[in-house]
Amino acid sequence: MKSFTEHLWMETKKRIEFVNITRQVQEIVKKSGVKEGLVLVNAMHITASVYINDAESGLIEDIQKLLERLVPNHDHPYKHNLTGEDNAYAHLRRMLIGRDVVVAITDGKLDFGPWEAIYYAEFDGQRKKRVLVKVIGE
Amino acid sequence: MKSFTEHLWMETKKRIEFVNITRQVQEIVKKSGVKEGLVLVNAMHITASVYINDAESGLIEDIQKLLERLVPNHDHPYKHNLTGEDNAYAHLRRMLIGRDVVVAITDGKLDFGPWEAIYYAEFDGQRKKRVLVKVIGE
Amino acid sequence: MKSFTEHLWMETKKRIEFVNITRQVQEIVKKSGVKEGLVLVNAMHITASVYINDAESGLIEDIQKLLERLVPNHDHPYKHNLTGEDNAYAHLRRMLIGRDVVVAITDGKLDFGPWEAIYYAEFDGQRKKRVLVKVIGE
Repeated sequence: MKSFTEHLWMETKKRIEFVNITRQVQEIVKKSGVKEGLVLVNAMHITASVYINDAESGLIEDIQKLLERLVPNHDHPYKHNLTGEDNAYAHLRRMLIGRDVVVAITDGKLDFGPWEAIYYAEFDGQRKKRVLVKVIGE
Repeated sequence: MKSFTEHLWMETKKRIEFVNITRQVQEIVKKSGVKEGLVLVNAMHITASVYINDAESGLIEDIQKLLERLVPNHDHPYKHNLTGEDNAYAHLRRMLIGRDVVVAITDGKLDFGPWEAIYYAEFDGQRKKRVLVKVIGE
Repeated sequence: MKSFTEHLWMETKKRIEFVNITRQVQEIVKKSGVKEGLVLVNAMHITASVYINDAESGLIEDIQKLLERLVPNHDHPYKHNLTGEDNAYAHLRRMLIGRDVVVAITDGKLDFGPWEAIYYAEFDGQRKKRVLVKVIGE
């Protein structure tokens, strides 16, 4: 069994920003030399998510609006913010969208459907954060 | 390390329909010959989910109603639908329910609790779509 | 390839209670002897979740309140409860928070960011339930 680990550094310009990282993950899979296996992609910070969906700007706005509606930020009395933080909303949105995706590798490539794209969803950015990419297989 | 890949073709009669695929995944695990490992099961299309919960028809209705309440479809001005699509709600519901599950294989079987069942949740069906089942282990 | 399986028994005092299981998972990874690989941690019962977020009591309250708001329990006419159960809300909350996490193992340790902690989220406790920890790698 082979394994291969790489971290992607993310630093978004906006506090909330979604970044397509599909190509970077594909390159790491290629570099790993794994032909058959799995790749785990996860946010290492707890105010960000990794998810798979469409690379379409309208949908990205829809996801952000849905999260604003379900988990409002401003003027909401979250307990976590009593610690001096102001990012309770970011922790909570990450709870709904999830932390990680696991993708199959077949013939050395991401075994993807026609429109699947891997996104890093930053909910509290403008600082350096990491995404872990771990490949295992043969 | 062994690996084994199979795709399940799904074509639901209704636009929104949940299908129990536990038996099919079990058969693929058996066919793979893997005794100890992991199986990844994921929707390859971005308007469908795979999840694990109870095989109980009332609960399935409850899940569908919860999603209608949190992510309404009709008369909701989603940006994604300005592209000519009408399935923004389906992309968004899949964001909440998730894309994939990873299940342990122990002694050649799905290492399941008493009521766990694997479901394919179709949010925009009536056409052919695929589920990926990837087994790795020994 | 090595594999190692262990089940954690959970029995919460309150019906809804979140338990930090990070140390227990770390010990299982150590015991497994796996240096490079993946560990799957999942609730084996369908009214509980496993998630990764901050070990901060205010945030835990915020998560529980968010779930009460999105998926109310009392006086809500869920179909699943017509079977004689009273835990439809617990099944549904688990749908939003998710069933499993997959964590990378690097150099024999959980490859974690600074604040990641693994939690068992019980939505219908006060009885014995299990969490599965499956390690694979080398």
